[in-house]
Amino acid sequence: MKTLKIIKIGGNIINNGILLNTFLNDFSKLDTPKILVHGGGRAASEISKKMGIAPKMIHGRRITDAETLDIITMVYGGKINKNIVAKLQANHCNSVGFSGADGNTIVAIKRPVKDIDYGFAGDIINVNTEVLEILLQHNITPVFCAITHNKKEQLLNTNADTIASELAVALSKKYKVSLYYCFEKNGVLENINDDNSVIERIDFKIFGNLKDKGIINEGMLPKIQNSLQAVKKGVTSVHIGAPNMPFNSKIKCTTFQQ
Amino acid sequence: MKTLKIIKIGGNIINNGILLNTFLNDFSKLDTPKILVHGGGRAASEISKKMGIAPKMIHGRRITDAETLDIITMVYGGKINKNIVAKLQANHCNSVGFSGADGNTIVAIKRPVKDIDYGFAGDIINVNTEVLEILLQHNITPVFCAITHNKKEQLLNTNADTIASELAVALSKKYKVSLYYCFEKNGVLENINDDNSVIERIDFKIFGNLKDKGIINEGMLPKIQNSLQAVKKGVTSVHIGAPNMPFNSKIKCTTFQQ
Repeated sequence: MKTLKIIKIGGNIINNGILLNTFLNDFSKLDTPKILVHGGGRAASEISKKMGIAPKMIHGRRITDAETLDIITMVYGGKINKNIVAKLQANHCNSVGFSGADGNTIVAIKRPVKDIDYGFAGDIINVNTEVLEILLQHNITPVFCAITHNKKEQLLNTNADTIASELAVALSKKYKVSLYYCFEKNGVLENINDDNSVIERIDFKIFGNLKDKGIINEGMLPKIQNSLQAVKKGVTSVHIGAPNMPFNSKIKCTTFQQ
Repeated sequence: MKTLKIIKIGGNIINNGILLNTFLNDFSKLDTPKILVHGGGRAASEISKKMGIAPKMIHGRRITDAETLDIITMVYGGKINKNIVAKLQANHCNSVGFSGADGNTIVAIKRPVKDIDYGFAGDIINVNTEVLEILLQHNITPVFCAITHNKKEQLLNTNADTIASELAVALSKKYKVSLYYCFEKNGVLENINDDNSVIERIDFKIFGNLKDKGIINEGMLPKIQNSLQAVKKGVTSVHIGAPNMPFNSKIKCTTFQQ
């Protein structure tokens, strides 16, 4: 099987022009098939503010109402996605921007209402890899924003980490997939105040121990659980670390492996 | 050669929910390879207004400054494009949204400054059909918004009619292309107040006569010139008319032919 790298970047890279350019330059040079998944950064909040739309929160959770979904579609699917694609083209990386509606790649359902109605938040139910495989075979790089659809006209807001891991799992049937989560730390840290305390390897057992000891920061839990699940479902390896980590195997990061 | 239909829709369809749904439903049923090109409608002005950004005009011409380009990228490339793709998917038409940056399909240069600096307005210099051909072969429909790029990171605002005709010309090397401009009239009218006075056929000679007689409305000139040039450069036929005209050959419209 061929190798495929799926790399997810978040706000810390998207909000920093120099970091983003460096990242995209390195990304363009990768000579394996690759997919980029990007989060939103702070642009959506800035545009909301300019338009006089306050973020909707219930019990500290962000709610995607129709207005917010429109802004997300404009900012993630339009401004950020198209500008990343234009930058990749300038770096001679032929890419095509995707939401989950494009190519019917990622189908989701509106999150069922239990205690909270999250609005137009989508939980992924199916990933169709056909169009992605066709493009990857022709050396064209898909660039995903964090939007899915329900196949019934409705766009949905979906977590970018989850999009990356669901793509990785679905494509692991055809490729040897390495999934990279780039973020503001060097990896999962044993001591949150010490950037050098990277835990270099995590499996279900180690994760259990770390949780028992209360070492794992709550904010890291979804990323770690996503990573463990991805590996369990066929992804060859998952890496969490700094933005330059996917391009240099010598850089310390946290690795999850089969 | 296979037949390819390229259909351009503008504000009169995009701004009208019922008309848009009917159009997309008919469009989805077309069983030839097809491409959709959409303009912007009034959403961009509405968002600008909400954000407190006034349209920039010089001598009555709209100028694309950086703020306006951002809004166009968000509204045309994000909101309108992704929602059209989601609607097509609901109609079982597998589609992928494109700007000219995606797949490096449409390369433009920033319009040279003579009397007026139009800002980030792009004049098309090259169309790369490779990615489009790959998708069309797999029965996937590209959906274009009116944005191009200069291959040096810069997105550019480009007229949707021109995008449609440049795509038609470039793809006419591989396909028998019919190009359709759907708009608010039934075609080029001999009498602007009589919707039944459709001029059914225009060639360079007839166009000369009509211009001499002062029959052609100034607003129609670019559309007609685009159409004549497209036919001259290899497009099999161009049709100007009502939104339902591409789906029913009995509906009167204005046709330009080789």
